[in-house]
Amino acid sequence: MKDLYIIKIGGNVIDNEEFLHQFLEDFAQIEAHTVLIHGGGKVATQIGEKLGIEAQMVDGRRVTDAKTLQLVTMVYGGLINKKVVALLQKFGKNACGFTGADGNLIQAHKRPVKTVDYGFVGDVDTVNSTFLDTVLNSEITPIIAPLTHDSQGNMLNTNADTIASTVAVAMANKYQVHLVYCFELKGVLRDFDDKSSVINSISFDQYQQLKEAGVISKGMIPKMDNSFDAIKNGVKSVIICHAEDLLNIVSGETKGTVLSA
Amino acid sequence: MKDLYIIKIGGNVIDNEEFLHQFLEDFAQIEAHTVLIHGGGKVATQIGEKLGIEAQMVDGRRVTDAKTLQLVTMVYGGLINKKVVALLQKFGKNACGFTGADGNLIQAHKRPVKTVDYGFVGDVDTVNSTFLDTVLNSEITPIIAPLTHDSQGNMLNTNADTIASTVAVAMANKYQVHLVYCFELKGVLRDFDDKSSVINSISFDQYQQLKEAGVISKGMIPKMDNSFDAIKNGVKSVIICHAEDLLNIVSGETKGTVLSA
Repeated sequence: MKDLYIIKIGGNVIDNEEFLHQFLEDFAQIEAHTVLIHGGGKVATQIGEKLGIEAQMVDGRRVTDAKTLQLVTMVYGGLINKKVVALLQKFGKNACGFTGADGNLIQAHKRPVKTVDYGFVGDVDTVNSTFLDTVLNSEITPIIAPLTHDSQGNMLNTNADTIASTVAVAMANKYQVHLVYCFELKGVLRDFDDKSSVINSISFDQYQQLKEAGVISKGMIPKMDNSFDAIKNGVKSVIICHAEDLLNIVSGETKGTVLSA
Repeated sequence: MKDLYIIKIGGNVIDNEEFLHQFLEDFAQIEAHTVLIHGGGKVATQIGEKLGIEAQMVDGRRVTDAKTLQLVTMVYGGLINKKVVALLQKFGKNACGFTGADGNLIQAHKRPVKTVDYGFVGDVDTVNSTFLDTVLNSEITPIIAPLTHDSQGNMLNTNADTIASTVAVAMANKYQVHLVYCFELKGVLRDFDDKSSVINSISFDQYQQLKEAGVISKGMIPKMDNSFDAIKNGVKSVIICHAEDLLNIVSGETKGTVLSA
């Protein structure tokens, strides 16, 4: 099976113009099949403030009311997605932007209200892996914004980490999939105050211990859960690393934190 | 050759929620290959006002400074494009949104400054008809936002009428192309105050006379110029009509204004 790199870049990479350019220039050099999933960044919050849309957070997650849904559809699906695509065209990579509605790529349903009403947040039902495969076989690199749709005419806001792992799992029967989470740290840290204290590899059992010991913190837990879920479902490797280490990782060097079953 | 309908909807159709839903429900029923190009609508101006970006107009055309470019990239490429795509998915049409950057669909260059500096406005150089054909052959309906790119990492704002006619010409060697401009009037009117005074057909010579006589007004001239240019370059038919007459036209009825060489 061919290699496929599913790469996610977080908001902090997107917010820094210079950093983003360098990342995309590196990304454009990868010869293997790639899919890029981007997060939102602070720009949505900034534009939202100007529009009088306040960010409502519950347990560190954005609540998506109707106005916020419009905001993220504009900013994630328009502003950020097209910026990334246009820059990749400049760097010689024929990219094409998608949300989950485009080509019916990712169907989701509005998250049911339990203790918290997250509003227009989508939990993924299906990924159209056939469509994604067709795109990849046309030598086009898909750039996915963190938006899904409910097949009833509504866009939904969906976490980019979750999209990355879900897409990785969906492609695992066609490709040898490597899921790479790129962010602004060197990997999962043993001590958050020591940016060099990268844990080189974590097995599922070690993850449980690190979680119990409080070494792995709140924000990292959903990312790790998504990652181990992906490994259990056929994804070959999951790496959490600094965005500037992307090319090293693709060329087989050991960087960041490697997760294993 | 197979038929291909290149259909453009204007801002007034987009601005009216009920009208837009009905139009898209009709559009979804067309069995022939279709491409939809949408304009901007008032929503860009409204959101721009909230963001403190004033619309600057010269001779009825928007001047696109850097902030306005961000605005239209968000609104045209994100908000409107994804709304249309999500609704078409609801109506059973597998649509996929594109700007000119996506799949390198439409390359353009920044319009040179002569008497007026229009800013980040793109004049089209090439349409990637091979890519568009691949999309159509995958049974996916392309929905194009009025944005192009310059291959140097910049998005550019491009008139939707112009994109429609340029795409129509680019596809004319592969398909029997019908270019349909849908708006809120029954066609080209002989008397603007009489909405029923539709001119049923206009040849190029008649167009010159109508222009000289002042019957065809300012805003309509670029649309008509684009249309006759398309006919000269291989497009089979151009029809200017009310959005609600779309299905009649596709089924072969005579509606709106038909332009001919």
